[in-house]
Amino acid sequence: MRKRTLAASMALTLAAGAAQADEGMWMPSQLPQLSKALRAAGFEGDPAQLADVTRAPLAAVVSLGGCTASFVSAQGLVVTNHHCAMGAIQLNSTPENNLIENGFNAPTLAAEVSAGPAARIYVTVGFDNITDRILAGTKGKAGRAYFDAVDAAKKAVVAQCEADAGHRCSVADMYYGSAFYLIKQLELKDVRLVYAPPVSIGNYGDEIDNFVWPRHVGDFSFYRAYVGKDGKPAPYAKDNVPYQPPAHLSVSTAPVKAGDFAMIAGYPGVTFRHRTASEFENQIGWLLPNRVALLEGLIQTIDKATAGHPDKVVLYASTVASLKNNLKRAQGELEGLRRSDAIRVRGEDEKAMLAWLGKQPGARAEQAGIRALQQQLDAGEANRARDLVLPYLRPGLLGAAVQLQRLALERGKPDAQRESGYQQRDEAMLAGGLKQLQRRFDPEVEKATLRFALQRYYALPQAQRVAEFDAVFGTSEAEATQRLEALYAGTRLGNEATRLAAMQQDAAALAASDDSLLKAAATLQPALLRLEAEAKQRAGELLRLRPAYMQALIAYRTSQGRAVYPDANSTLRVSFGKVSPLSPRDGVDYRPLTTVAGIVEKHTGVVPFNAPKPLLEAIAKGDFGSTVDPELRTQTVDFLTNLDTTGGNSGSPVLDAQGKLIGLNFDSNWEAVSASWMYDPRYKRAIHVDMRYLRWLLAKVYPAPNLLEEMQLPAQ
Amino acid sequence: MRKRTLAASMALTLAAGAAQADEGMWMPSQLPQLSKALRAAGFEGDPAQLADVTRAPLAAVVSLGGCTASFVSAQGLVVTNHHCAMGAIQLNSTPENNLIENGFNAPTLAAEVSAGPAARIYVTVGFDNITDRILAGTKGKAGRAYFDAVDAAKKAVVAQCEADAGHRCSVADMYYGSAFYLIKQLELKDVRLVYAPPVSIGNYGDEIDNFVWPRHVGDFSFYRAYVGKDGKPAPYAKDNVPYQPPAHLSVSTAPVKAGDFAMIAGYPGVTFRHRTASEFENQIGWLLPNRVALLEGLIQTIDKATAGHPDKVVLYASTVASLKNNLKRAQGELEGLRRSDAIRVRGEDEKAMLAWLGKQPGARAEQAGIRALQQQLDAGEANRARDLVLPYLRPGLLGAAVQLQRLALERGKPDAQRESGYQQRDEAMLAGGLKQLQRRFDPEVEKATLRFALQRYYALPQAQRVAEFDAVFGTSEAEATQRLEALYAGTRLGNEATRLAAMQQDAAALAASDDSLLKAAATLQPALLRLEAEAKQRAGELLRLRPAYMQALIAYRTSQGRAVYPDANSTLRVSFGKVSPLSPRDGVDYRPLTTVAGIVEKHTGVVPFNAPKPLLEAIAKGDFGSTVDPELRTQTVDFLTNLDTTGGNSGSPVLDAQGKLIGLNFDSNWEAVSASWMYDPRYKRAIHVDMRYLRWLLAKVYPAPNLLEEMQLPAQ
Repeated sequence: MRKRTLAASMALTLAAGAAQADEGMWMPSQLPQLSKALRAAGFEGDPAQLADVTRAPLAAVVSLGGCTASFVSAQGLVVTNHHCAMGAIQLNSTPENNLIENGFNAPTLAAEVSAGPAARIYVTVGFDNITDRILAGTKGKAGRAYFDAVDAAKKAVVAQCEADAGHRCSVADMYYGSAFYLIKQLELKDVRLVYAPPVSIGNYGDEIDNFVWPRHVGDFSFYRAYVGKDGKPAPYAKDNVPYQPPAHLSVSTAPVKAGDFAMIAGYPGVTFRHRTASEFENQIGWLLPNRVALLEGLIQTIDKATAGHPDKVVLYASTVASLKNNLKRAQGELEGLRRSDAIRVRGEDEKAMLAWLGKQPGARAEQAGIRALQQQLDAGEANRARDLVLPYLRPGLLGAAVQLQRLALERGKPDAQRESGYQQRDEAMLAGGLKQLQRRFDPEVEKATLRFALQRYYALPQAQRVAEFDAVFGTSEAEATQRLEALYAGTRLGNEATRLAAMQQDAAALAASDDSLLKAAATLQPALLRLEAEAKQRAGELLRLRPAYMQALIAYRTSQGRAVYPDANSTLRVSFGKVSPLSPRDGVDYRPLTTVAGIVEKHTGVVPFNAPKPLLEAIAKGDFGSTVDPELRTQTVDFLTNLDTTGGNSGSPVLDAQGKLIGLNFDSNWEAVSASWMYDPRYKRAIHVDMRYLRWLLAKVYPAPNLLEEMQLPAQ
Repeated sequence: MRKRTLAASMALTLAAGAAQADEGMWMPSQLPQLSKALRAAGFEGDPAQLADVTRAPLAAVVSLGGCTASFVSAQGLVVTNHHCAMGAIQLNSTPENNLIENGFNAPTLAAEVSAGPAARIYVTVGFDNITDRILAGTKGKAGRAYFDAVDAAKKAVVAQCEADAGHRCSVADMYYGSAFYLIKQLELKDVRLVYAPPVSIGNYGDEIDNFVWPRHVGDFSFYRAYVGKDGKPAPYAKDNVPYQPPAHLSVSTAPVKAGDFAMIAGYPGVTFRHRTASEFENQIGWLLPNRVALLEGLIQTIDKATAGHPDKVVLYASTVASLKNNLKRAQGELEGLRRSDAIRVRGEDEKAMLAWLGKQPGARAEQAGIRALQQQLDAGEANRARDLVLPYLRPGLLGAAVQLQRLALERGKPDAQRESGYQQRDEAMLAGGLKQLQRRFDPEVEKATLRFALQRYYALPQAQRVAEFDAVFGTSEAEATQRLEALYAGTRLGNEATRLAAMQQDAAALAASDDSLLKAAATLQPALLRLEAEAKQRAGELLRLRPAYMQALIAYRTSQGRAVYPDANSTLRVSFGKVSPLSPRDGVDYRPLTTVAGIVEKHTGVVPFNAPKPLLEAIAKGDFGSTVDPELRTQTVDFLTNLDTTGGNSGSPVLDAQGKLIGLNFDSNWEAVSASWMYDPRYKRAIHVDMRYLRWLLAKVYPAPNLLEEMQLPAQ
């Protein structure tokens, strides 16, 4: 059995306990076997203890769902990023007291306010390998059947686990279908806002400084977890009591400097580090450049169609902002992967792995599996140009018509069997989207974006064209121009009430509609369903075939004395490294610590560089007390490490060699956007708030002596 | 006599020979007295020799008129910046052989090509104090009469000096009317292009990298000066011979590193360092912010008026580019002066000077003079809002009408008495401007810019309004809108032929014209002449009154043991300092040397980051021969010093402690834009091509063994 071989090679790897580079988002259970590397890096704690998610320090590291946070007192005090608590801050703001602008500072428990009914704190209490249970039913299956067997096994395990009230469970896929872990989390539902600095500190520099180092942000806030009087999770109630966590972190009072050991624990979202060389080639050589060109073209098209019409510029402002953000990310990823020469590096690595594998006895099955995987990937790439352009052929109003037809179809099924996104609980959001369209749509602009996307569609090889799309838009640009005029002249969906009314109609009524866009959507629907089914079939095959590749990779790394972490998947991970400067390019050095002098330098008085007066005055006064940096002789603000992070690590605690809290992760540098695919030690850095800056703000600028005392920190 | 006192205090200063900060654009004659500071900085040559402009090294430093260059061989070989030789490179380009793209490399003297009939090399042969002669006729005069007396004395001196054939002479005003120097220059008229790298090396990064450090530009070219067979200056003739200069620089073969002594000699254009505290306040507190707001508003106005009209966008592209460039400069200057806290620093310095002056015996006259100067400056500032906006009330076509009326007026005078810009020699350029307007003008856009400028005009206090402008545009925005419609409906000047025909008409004919814009221009003309006369009157008063201030400043500095350099005025100056890194802001360090790795990093293949293939290949090959940096173990490209430079220093030689050539100045960093007003040692840097990069390109990339041999440099 393939998975047995894999498990064996993993054990081998971990036993090797080799020194590792700073790369790695390790599962807690891997850390004891990395003890040699941890000690070499400077860690002074017990690596064995890091494996137990129910003990300190990992028991103190919680998920907010999308963000990470940590307990910092025995009374359920939690620290995370300001941007992670933004929803709660906004919720409690009133015209009279705008907490975003002014910040928030509860002097007593009674003054703490609810973060809202949807706020959650998840405490990981179990992290167990259940690979055998999940794969038991997959034997002899392939494609969609393989996918469905895994899915059914997951659902059964989760249901059983969640029978334990107050818990949320999920099954995490590690190493691309090779191993599955059951993650059990205590779900705390009464979350309260305790402290937030003004946004002009918590988000100083905003979009302009986003991805930028050097940074000068106090991106932190405090929550507190509450439970019922019985100590169990409960929804918000006035007389709930502070939750007493199994462990909490101590905040360090020692200085931080370049070269210091650092460790981060958190819930990183998704990475693609262990994708195949051909997937790297596709991403860098084809997908990213084509995505960049498509997004640039689309932005130009909208700019041109809205120019001279201020009303239309406003209608499309948020669409353009989002397209530009996607473009910036794609450009950054492409730039970074090219800078790291990622196609060559990954290609040579895989070639060496395959050569090594060829020399191993009894590796025939793995070799055959890798060849099958490669064929599957090639087959998927055969339609990549089509897959890139099709989503752009159902924008705005036409997209709404497609959604309306799909909703009518799904409503014909029992709710549980409806496609995700079209269940009863999704209907309010769908209605919201149909309403919002009124402020984000213009028929002339939409036709222009469709003409632009259709140019690309008509350039596809005939084999990639889709009959139903040809039927709706015609088979040439000239024909499309005419069809588009007719489509938008013959629809009444431009009217909000009409769209919302259509949402209430059943499939038969919608099928019979004479509305031109609803008719077009009805024509497209079979194609969209067919493509969706093909995608699921492919996903199942990849789930079945990838483990052969991962097994070979892990075995090859083992032979090199190196361990392998699974790609990120929002489960609890640990990375270790050090406080590090950065040389982003020839001639430029970034220091690893910033100081309050930079706040003053950037201050213009205009958002987002409008440092509040109390902060500027405190900086001018220069009274930094116990938080002053002994070498720099001033107050530090943020710092840089080479820790391995990605989205989801926001708010993650950064620990020192003794496991004490020295920082809160909140961003990466621009040069590291490509780290989702490849960790390049020259450029990958993570950006953290220095806990000394937080302590100074609490001591001298917006005082919270109660919190300092609760965290057993100096008052000054 | 005031100037006697001044001369005495200057002598005292120079005798003190105090150690100076790196600030200072010294006249050659000041250098022997700065010998202590020069030696302390590391200079190993003879400071006395630096005073003699007819001996090495200064005799090798020449002006190209706007740029600086230097002789680097006994056969008249001259090195300067690529951007300084751009005109000559362009002139010799053909569709078949584009020298801008391809570069140029003459293997023999015969292959060298003319830089064009207007190209000049000026060799400074005299630099003498003639203050007494210039000020002799000013006694008892003030205002315009004072101005005219100085002007007449200058003209007489220049005429006498230029009687020596082959020379061009000028009188330079040092210390704002305090001292005058006769500058005598040999005028070489046969200048030939010898070598230029491709623009993708010579201007790598272009506008994007302009003002930026770290930089990766090979901004150099070679000229050669030719003279007649008699050794005298002569226009281009095939059988002219290479000029044998009185001195030439040796190119260094030693490495350059942080902290090394560096010295620059060149012809810096204009600085305002010794302006009064009130002028600093006006510049930083009023003029720059208002210029920024006005330029921003104007750019927005044009953007709005051209949006949705691609043809109009093209018509105004160059206008907008130029406005944006001016805006960027103004913003950079403002940002820098604020960063340096220049109002406070200059204010406190002046206050201390005045306090010191108050304690000196017999300083009454100086004190009275400074008060009078202050009154004059205040009076000038009273109309600053008007003076800022009026130039924007005669844009494009209306501006052409104003020019046509003025030309007709000036043509009524003997040519020598015509206002500069309206003489016979200027008429071709005026006609060119009238033609060019056809590609840079649209009536709707011009009306929009006028409406914008008029908003600001109508906001002026009544006392600053000008009757003639009110008469043309009306006295309110509503009235102006109507008048503008009528003005542009009633003109035929939009037609190119009509404009050019109007240029041939005399004053009477133009005065009688019924063309609406020509009539408006006729109405405005008396106002413009009146304002011009007022400006000359003020200039004369300032010329008379500033010396009292300068005298006090020099005497005060003397008391501090410091020498004072005159503000830059395009005469030969020397600055010394060192190779220096830069910390432009909190957390960022710039290294003082860049390397070829940065060329590869910036290379995108797209202009302006399209490094040529031979360069990329040579970098990849890594064969750097004798030019490799011994510490960095690679090829350096550009370097940074703290030398005191400004516009006009382009192409200036940078010398080492032995006076050997180590670099060519070509730019400043963004943080130093404000150095025209204040030298801040934290931020003022100058950017140079490393001569080792030049040598490597000549040795290995675009080989010119003949030039290396001529400069007695290693072939590899």
